[in-house]
Amino acid sequence: MKCLVYLLIVGMTASFSARAQPRPPAISSPEVHPDHSITFRYFSKKAGRVTLSGEFLKAPVAMTRDTAGVWSVTVPPVKPDIYPYSFRVDSVQIADPSNTYIFANERFKRSIVDVPGDRPLVHSLRNVPHGKISYRYYKSGTLGTTRPLLVYTPPGFDPNGKTRYPVLYLIHGGSDTEETWTKVGRAHLIADNLIAEKKAKPMIIVMPYGNVRPAPMPDFTKDMVNDIVPFIESSYPVLKESRGRAVAGFSVGGGQTLNIGLTHPDKFAYVCSYAPFTATDEFRKNFTDWSPDAGRLNKQLKLFTISVGTEDFLFEPVKQNIAMFQEKKLPVKSYIVPGGHTWMNCKQYLATTLQEIFQ
Amino acid sequence: MKCLVYLLIVGMTASFSARAQPRPPAISSPEVHPDHSITFRYFSKKAGRVTLSGEFLKAPVAMTRDTAGVWSVTVPPVKPDIYPYSFRVDSVQIADPSNTYIFANERFKRSIVDVPGDRPLVHSLRNVPHGKISYRYYKSGTLGTTRPLLVYTPPGFDPNGKTRYPVLYLIHGGSDTEETWTKVGRAHLIADNLIAEKKAKPMIIVMPYGNVRPAPMPDFTKDMVNDIVPFIESSYPVLKESRGRAVAGFSVGGGQTLNIGLTHPDKFAYVCSYAPFTATDEFRKNFTDWSPDAGRLNKQLKLFTISVGTEDFLFEPVKQNIAMFQEKKLPVKSYIVPGGHTWMNCKQYLATTLQEIFQ
Repeated sequence: MKCLVYLLIVGMTASFSARAQPRPPAISSPEVHPDHSITFRYFSKKAGRVTLSGEFLKAPVAMTRDTAGVWSVTVPPVKPDIYPYSFRVDSVQIADPSNTYIFANERFKRSIVDVPGDRPLVHSLRNVPHGKISYRYYKSGTLGTTRPLLVYTPPGFDPNGKTRYPVLYLIHGGSDTEETWTKVGRAHLIADNLIAEKKAKPMIIVMPYGNVRPAPMPDFTKDMVNDIVPFIESSYPVLKESRGRAVAGFSVGGGQTLNIGLTHPDKFAYVCSYAPFTATDEFRKNFTDWSPDAGRLNKQLKLFTISVGTEDFLFEPVKQNIAMFQEKKLPVKSYIVPGGHTWMNCKQYLATTLQEIFQ
Repeated sequence: MKCLVYLLIVGMTASFSARAQPRPPAISSPEVHPDHSITFRYFSKKAGRVTLSGEFLKAPVAMTRDTAGVWSVTVPPVKPDIYPYSFRVDSVQIADPSNTYIFANERFKRSIVDVPGDRPLVHSLRNVPHGKISYRYYKSGTLGTTRPLLVYTPPGFDPNGKTRYPVLYLIHGGSDTEETWTKVGRAHLIADNLIAEKKAKPMIIVMPYGNVRPAPMPDFTKDMVNDIVPFIESSYPVLKESRGRAVAGFSVGGGQTLNIGLTHPDKFAYVCSYAPFTATDEFRKNFTDWSPDAGRLNKQLKLFTISVGTEDFLFEPVKQNIAMFQEKKLPVKSYIVPGGHTWMNCKQYLATTLQEIFQ
């Protein structure tokens, strides 16, 4: 009876906002089991074939339909982490309609499944003091528009206190958005946890929107240096010298990190690049036939890291970039780890960086 | 040439995160034209039929395919507003894969299209001072979990200053999330604009996660009164008496608003309910055979409003509720306006409320 009332309410609720279209029954997906196996479900009476793709799978797996039209598959236990996945319904790739957790991205729609560990992971929501993520706007003179950015402030942050905080500028991947570092990368929870353990210094993390299309992708460097940094430094109590600024980013954002950081070592003492995509005009312009003053850069850069996974499809070009920077006698520290071009890896790169910067 | 480079970069970028699946070409959707007509596009070489549904349409319209596999349709000019829409690809209803703006909801995935006005609308991003939205967590003793909520603080907000702010507690609809009021309702921009025009008082707006399933939907009232309000009042410089507290909500959240507000008139002097869904155990328990002290409630409630659209599918039950409250001699003010059970209407209800509370 209670269940019936519930289904009635859920059914009515679901019908509120889209009455023109019949709504599927309430189903639970994904369902993570105690042994870390996961059941995925999708409702369709019309589909002919439904498959599951996920970054915990080597290849898509077929889902099977019951008589009520619920397609499902249970995958064997997976290593605790946060994984993107999607369904393919006949010809259509979709996010899981029953899952609120969407991969923030401009070009594909995938869902994410959080498989908790037996012990809390570095990105888990733990019982520690929590910082805040603020959604803000700034005016970009460079780009002539008002643009969004997210700002993480640490637990106990006091905008009027005497503490001046260091700032990490953290850039997403190529078709991601300013929300990807929190929604998929859980940067705020990683920071909360490492700060609580005193493994990271309390810091502000600024997550801008790094895409500046339309084409060809112009430099984001000017917007960062001339607009974002001044906006932050006029809005927050922060350290205004290079030892108080770090820049990091993933993929296209990793390439932007190298461009921004290494052309402005007077402004950023910490440059941490994750699986950088560097096949851009800006990178070629900056680093082909580049003759840096290595001695000076070695003094300016307190930390310069490049991280990449051995299964990353950019592994070879990233290795070549590391070699190029080594040839120029720059103090580059490389982290070569297992894994691919994924946000599972990306979270680990960030967790490492947070423990190394501003120390 | 430039275009080629761009397409190459976009193509490579798009392939980064989901290499296992071939990615569609870069297409622009939705494209809002200067005359407010809109072109929607979707790429598929395999689909047999693609239709567009949207709250600016009375019925779905078919999209047509070009030789490259791009399906499209252009709809005639629509009234400037923000509208939910979706595609149906054969049997599958999906959000627009090219559009980052997703309707935050637990059960369906739709996109939203923002049709700007010739003059800025109440929810437009204007050149005015902007407040901040903070993503936070609080511990719910009632529910035994850590739960998310969003907090809007107005421009110039000073957590340590002498100003004590009034607080609006604003609840989403039945299958929405704590993000729906900002992502779809643009509550923060409506507040920014009305505060800039001095039509609304600077205030804090708290947007909790109102769903407390699993079933049957238990009362959210205790969580609000015993956990959320104390969390806010210990974290922000706020007025801690009833004239400094308002509660409002839409649909299921509108029903929660009536339950919370009218059973705690000592705590909330402003109760504003939008198209409330009231067919719940809690509502029946509270208001069947209810004999309120009308004289006292008239003194306690500085504002009690119920808003609904004449095309809302809840119009009849909402009218009955208004009549019931009138019979009990409560000071209910009703706003009966055109429109349906939509977030287009909901934004207007909020804009009205913001100008009436805390005055």
